Amino acid sequence: MMDAIQTDTIRLIEWLSQFGNDPKGGVSRLLYTEEWVDAQRALEQYMQEEGFTTYYDEIGNLYGRLEGSQYPDETIVSGSHVDTVRNGGKYDGQYGIIAAIMAMKALRQEHGEPLRTLEVVSFAEEEGSRFPYTFWGSKNLAGMAKKEDVQEIQDFNGVPFVDAMKQAGFGFRDESSTLRSDIKAFVELHIEQGSVLEHEQLSVGVVHSIVGQRRFTIEIHGEANHAGTTPMGYRKDAVHAAGRMIQQILDLAQAYGDPLVSTVGKIDVKPNVVNVVPGNALFTLDIRHTDKKELIRFTDEVTELMKRTAESLGVEITIDMWMDEDPVPMNAEIIQVLEKQCEKHHIPFKLMHSGAGHDSQIMAKFVPTAMLFVPSRKGISHNPEEYTSPEHLADGIRALTYALYELAYEA
Amino acid sequence: MMDAIQTDTIRLIEWLSQFGNDPKGGVSRLLYTEEWVDAQRALEQYMQEEGFTTYYDEIGNLYGRLEGSQYPDETIVSGSHVDTVRNGGKYDGQYGIIAAIMAMKALRQEHGEPLRTLEVVSFAEEEGSRFPYTFWGSKNLAGMAKKEDVQEIQDFNGVPFVDAMKQAGFGFRDESSTLRSDIKAFVELHIEQGSVLEHEQLSVGVVHSIVGQRRFTIEIHGEANHAGTTPMGYRKDAVHAAGRMIQQILDLAQAYGDPLVSTVGKIDVKPNVVNVVPGNALFTLDIRHTDKKELIRFTDEVTELMKRTAESLGVEITIDMWMDEDPVPMNAEIIQVLEKQCEKHHIPFKLMHSGAGHDSQIMAKFVPTAMLFVPSRKGISHNPEEYTSPEHLADGIRALTYALYELAYEA
Repeated sequence: MMDAIQTDTIRLIEWLSQFGNDPKGGVSRLLYTEEWVDAQRALEQYMQEEGFTTYYDEIGNLYGRLEGSQYPDETIVSGSHVDTVRNGGKYDGQYGIIAAIMAMKALRQEHGEPLRTLEVVSFAEEEGSRFPYTFWGSKNLAGMAKKEDVQEIQDFNGVPFVDAMKQAGFGFRDESSTLRSDIKAFVELHIEQGSVLEHEQLSVGVVHSIVGQRRFTIEIHGEANHAGTTPMGYRKDAVHAAGRMIQQILDLAQAYGDPLVSTVGKIDVKPNVVNVVPGNALFTLDIRHTDKKELIRFTDEVTELMKRTAESLGVEITIDMWMDEDPVPMNAEIIQVLEKQCEKHHIPFKLMHSGAGHDSQIMAKFVPTAMLFVPSRKGISHNPEEYTSPEHLADGIRALTYALYELAYEA
Repeated sequence: MMDAIQTDTIRLIEWLSQFGNDPKGGVSRLLYTEEWVDAQRALEQYMQEEGFTTYYDEIGNLYGRLEGSQYPDETIVSGSHVDTVRNGGKYDGQYGIIAAIMAMKALRQEHGEPLRTLEVVSFAEEEGSRFPYTFWGSKNLAGMAKKEDVQEIQDFNGVPFVDAMKQAGFGFRDESSTLRSDIKAFVELHIEQGSVLEHEQLSVGVVHSIVGQRRFTIEIHGEANHAGTTPMGYRKDAVHAAGRMIQQILDLAQAYGDPLVSTVGKIDVKPNVVNVVPGNALFTLDIRHTDKKELIRFTDEVTELMKRTAESLGVEITIDMWMDEDPVPMNAEIIQVLEKQCEKHHIPFKLMHSGAGHDSQIMAKFVPTAMLFVPSRKGISHNPEEYTSPEHLADGIRALTYALYELAYEA
């Protein structure tokens, strides 16, 4: 039997999923599209009906506000992003918006007006699925997005970002205006998109930090040769070098263990035919860690390994680091609140890091920020198969509710 | 200063290269095309002018014959294939035809009629560049080609093999007819297509065997996962497995050393994006050796290694062997003739194997067969950059000439 929270959650998720319901599967709700506008309008109306005061900022982030009775200028914000990837799931992003609405609504029903202002945020964009830009929503709230970042970019159909924004009824933030100083805390509830909670049979993850990421493209330049007539000793085999490097990097990553992860996601070989010793090989390397020092140490070690392997196999190597983002720790005080409330209310949880990027990593640079995770079945996300059980969805909302109570209702 | 043999060779090679001279570079002379017909007709006419009796067989192999005075029914054949790959070089194939004509012409000028019949062959096809079929020329002479092998195949423009053949004026061999029993020896002169002779600064290679080949497609089935949220311990990373296998296979191949060669020419990863742990990886494996027992031993060892690696990384593997050709030894008596003549005439040579396939591997199953190589600059072939110096071209022709003398003029 589902309890009321579970039933309400499922109902609201199904309701919101109709905006962008994709005949090819899942939800496709890309920034500033018709489906996106419909979803924000529907959320706006729903929040109004539930007694929230709603408004948009210039770029289209939607807010729903319950004014604080004692400290109206101290705001506790919760929410997530309303956009999805193409053929995404029903939970990534929108669950955090629905959860914030449900938590605040329940608190007001049970406890009346909060002491501090409570505010839902439905961020315009996080995924970077339509335009080559990510975190447009939270970066605008945090004052980190710049006009010039998006002024020249277009979507896959050649529609300029600026035109899409205007079409949806929004415009640029006034970069000369003062940023909000009222936000005292941001708490984001999101699906884990990994399988750690599922493996450990826990309902909730309290996120202590979001990993830093470094991304590389490694190119190996050897010499293409005939696969039959070139003795092993005469070869400059780019794939032999790539194979050895990949093996070394991923073996070392296994030895490092959590929280380090390292991925070789892409390999391209030239000429890529069965009977030619490959002259060129390219692969990508994605390295993540919660500790910048460890991220650097691992990077240095694998760089050294790759150079030595290239030398020993007589090939040239170029290593291009094209992403270098620092780890982002969550706010210690809010983490304590989240842990305390989970313990107090017997919600099975663990302290963990996030291996994926979230709006919280932007918000954390702006205001005290923390995150909660709920399990993802088989770790699947960005896919119509994305799923979290009603029990876990409800446990996440309960944890959020108790935390928001402590943050907004306690003196 | 070039001597007469060098000058004549270069002139004939340039002359024959005009048939299929490709504006995009090199020579493109695919089976039964207009360029191919022109080349065969030109060779036919040239041989007639030089006093050879010429004829085609049913499928379009061209022969030029100098009748033996004493043993007319004992025929010594030399030649190679007239077709090229697309944008191929000026030496692969046609050099062996020109060399045979020049050698036989020189022998008759110097020594008159041979005791045994001498015959040039210009094989219709070896490369498999137009249709998915190789060795069409030699397989027909050796009675190994079957109508049904080509009856359904088409070229890249959808032209059926049979139509192209008829268009060029040829048809199928009568499979019920008796095969030739007059051929006592076949000697093929060909470019090495490798860099062994160049590295060792030798003019000629006497081929003792053509490698056996095994080709495999290896597919690894792991699990696609988020590159950030999936701890190393939870992964079933197809690329980690592929990297380790490739490293093990190619390290082992280096340890085996000559004449074993092993090549991973092709890798395809799915989904092949930077931030997803790859769920699937496919790679090809090409293994060659002159000794079947060693070919099997290496195959067994790498199969065992791959299975163990798959097991230790928790992925599934399928290993598909789709080519298994035995090594082909050349005829010991003709090898002796070739070695003896090179020694006697101070042509710097070495006994070596062929790592590439040649018409000789077909002919060797039919008649006593041997091969000579000349160096390829940097080992390059199947490319407009293919080059052999005039000195080496001439040394190859001299070695062939002396050998044909011994085979056709000595009692």
